[in-house]
Amino acid sequence: MNTVELIRKKRNGLPLLKSEIQFLISSYLKKKIPDYQFSAFLMAVYFRGMDETEQSALTDAMINSGKIVDLKKIRGLKVDKHSTGGVGDKTSMIIAPIAAAAGVKVPMISGRGLGHTGGTLDKLESIPGFRTDLSLSQFKNILQKCGAVLIGQTKEIAPADKLIYALRDVTATVESIPLITASIMSKKIAEGIDGLVLDVKTGSGAFMPEEKDAVKLADSLIRTAKSFDKKVIAFITDMNQPLGNYIGNWFEVYESIKVLQGENVEDLLELSLNLAGAMIYLGNKAGSIEEGKEISRDLIKNGKAFDKFIEIVKHQNGNVKFLYSPEKYPKSKFSKKIFSPKKGYLSVINNYDIGMAALELGAGRRTKEDKIDPKAGIIFYSKIGSQINRGDVIAEVFTDNKTKLEIARDKILNSLTFSSTKTNKLKIIKKIIN
Amino acid sequence: MNTVELIRKKRNGLPLLKSEIQFLISSYLKKKIPDYQFSAFLMAVYFRGMDETEQSALTDAMINSGKIVDLKKIRGLKVDKHSTGGVGDKTSMIIAPIAAAAGVKVPMISGRGLGHTGGTLDKLESIPGFRTDLSLSQFKNILQKCGAVLIGQTKEIAPADKLIYALRDVTATVESIPLITASIMSKKIAEGIDGLVLDVKTGSGAFMPEEKDAVKLADSLIRTAKSFDKKVIAFITDMNQPLGNYIGNWFEVYESIKVLQGENVEDLLELSLNLAGAMIYLGNKAGSIEEGKEISRDLIKNGKAFDKFIEIVKHQNGNVKFLYSPEKYPKSKFSKKIFSPKKGYLSVINNYDIGMAALELGAGRRTKEDKIDPKAGIIFYSKIGSQINRGDVIAEVFTDNKTKLEIARDKILNSLTFSSTKTNKLKIIKKIIN
Repeated sequence: MNTVELIRKKRNGLPLLKSEIQFLISSYLKKKIPDYQFSAFLMAVYFRGMDETEQSALTDAMINSGKIVDLKKIRGLKVDKHSTGGVGDKTSMIIAPIAAAAGVKVPMISGRGLGHTGGTLDKLESIPGFRTDLSLSQFKNILQKCGAVLIGQTKEIAPADKLIYALRDVTATVESIPLITASIMSKKIAEGIDGLVLDVKTGSGAFMPEEKDAVKLADSLIRTAKSFDKKVIAFITDMNQPLGNYIGNWFEVYESIKVLQGENVEDLLELSLNLAGAMIYLGNKAGSIEEGKEISRDLIKNGKAFDKFIEIVKHQNGNVKFLYSPEKYPKSKFSKKIFSPKKGYLSVINNYDIGMAALELGAGRRTKEDKIDPKAGIIFYSKIGSQINRGDVIAEVFTDNKTKLEIARDKILNSLTFSSTKTNKLKIIKKIIN
Repeated sequence: MNTVELIRKKRNGLPLLKSEIQFLISSYLKKKIPDYQFSAFLMAVYFRGMDETEQSALTDAMINSGKIVDLKKIRGLKVDKHSTGGVGDKTSMIIAPIAAAAGVKVPMISGRGLGHTGGTLDKLESIPGFRTDLSLSQFKNILQKCGAVLIGQTKEIAPADKLIYALRDVTATVESIPLITASIMSKKIAEGIDGLVLDVKTGSGAFMPEEKDAVKLADSLIRTAKSFDKKVIAFITDMNQPLGNYIGNWFEVYESIKVLQGENVEDLLELSLNLAGAMIYLGNKAGSIEEGKEISRDLIKNGKAFDKFIEIVKHQNGNVKFLYSPEKYPKSKFSKKIFSPKKGYLSVINNYDIGMAALELGAGRRTKEDKIDPKAGIIFYSKIGSQINRGDVIAEVFTDNKTKLEIARDKILNSLTFSSTKTNKLKIIKKIIN
């Protein structure tokens, strides 16, 4: 096959054959197609999209660039969750233990934070000793014994995705629904799952701010999952403000523990119950999402969800001391309360900027090479719709780098809009699609 | 500036600033932007196009990647012609001497043949001794003395174009009007011209088969030329059949001599008179194209055009013996007459295939590295609209490679469609735009 002719075919809006897509991916992986041709192909896909057959073929080619984890010997249905990411999004640490406590097998492969968004791996690694770099056999072993395991991307799984993502990142071809779909689904399907719950965020802190784009992505993910005979439910959820009140790696572990111990952090609890409920439903341990939510509530109430979290951390070599006594966790050297300069209803948050303020404080990464300070972060006390008086504490920032206190404060204050008229609270769940 | 952000900006349909385009081109030339980013940028330009300001900025950046030839010391207006190429297109060798004989200065930088199209350099080099690889100072010197000079692309002129074209060629980004415009105009403007006559071909043997695309390209070329204060006239001309009757390098020199000596090769003469007329008009040696055509006719009749051709060839080291006695030129080892298998009116020619048949015979190049046989080619006796009887000689093919005779014959016969009803002849000039 001739690479230039395949790029031209895609460029001209003609659908590629399965064999042609396989050729492109496998040749690129073998370095037989140079980066400059593949990036032109990616840009053509950005503009022309892909039909369902092409989308499945692309996903399939990326799955088959590596190993498919064989979890057949482990009893029960394997269900994972994928979130498109956001600010304060810590639900994985809450729902993996809940679903596992309900008897679902949860093989979770997560990512790291970049830019304004956090990553589950970084959060878990704020627990001293916690290891996310497990081998596939350790991964299977813990999944078998404990029911849930949370690790990072391994070299064996969908290596084409890593290669292609690195190229997309530097060629402005990240924001393409077929490419995002193949990237997400190839990794998830190669993980050996039976079902997948999708949390597609929309709003100012989301990767896709517009709800219509989030719905399009969810539809594409669902169609692709189904074409591989996977059970799937997608939630379109709000990311116009931080999820919960804590942003930062250890901070988010802390808030997750609180929720697992029964604290009612409104938006975070509601989203977690829904996602866990859907996982339990897809894992055949409930007859509906609603029943799954009931089971989840019970597992929090009777302590089994928190116990499962402790069990996971122990299996992954984490020190559980701080989970029982979080007040003993090391503190940031500096902190600063941020007071409201105005009276009114909090009406708009530029949530991207809240994420970037957390990054400034040390909680995030500008580039993949940056180091993270696990203690750093923000406690954000207010929600859209909150009535605020002048001088109220809106947020508090924590860092070891004193010069960042002012920068973060300004970023946070500039991200807020107040209204003199009453503003409605936001619904966390905007749509459920399956 | 951030390259990814500039690619994203173009991808999102926002116009780039002049400084941003300059940054992209100069960084790419210095190898500070890798091929894989530049090819993604090119594909984004393919889809989004460029507005007039961007188009000028791109052309300007490519001009300034090299030297601008300073022809100010040479008296008179400098006028060149550019053709988008086709089958049997030999007008440069006819009109350069005519325009120079009329007192216009003609600094012509031409290209080589590739695929189904021929190139002026290859044709001229079929004249033994003829040199096209002159330095810029030799170029100026001959232009001054002789009034016309025809050379190949030099390293000093628009080096960014060569680099970018090589990348476009392998990333399916050749067929983009803003990229074609910048490629053509940067080289022509850097040549030091005052005016330019454009011959934009349309039809089955043209780079842009659809007339509407040819008109779009002509409009873009004209706007860009004007933005650099160049005088410009564009002809949209027919390329649905070979121009003239001879295809092949020496064959085309031969037919050019015939026209310069007064032979009436209908379509070729008409187009040559128009292009030369327009050059003479832009060079201020006539008050209109019509008057320029009259002058051209006279210069053929009184022998001055042919004399000027001899003078050019001599200045460029060519042996003029064969120009006076073309019958002495070496002959191909094999030839074959092609007889019509049908009776009827010739109604359609797949002119691309005629060009490819000439390539098979040795007259063309599949890749830049291929060698050309100057003697090889086709004499094509018929035109669309010709009434043909079974057994009439339609064409004759010439080659040193006996196995190619049958291949070329089949290609030619398969490229022809006959109709039982009378078919109109084609008009060579479809539109004049300025």
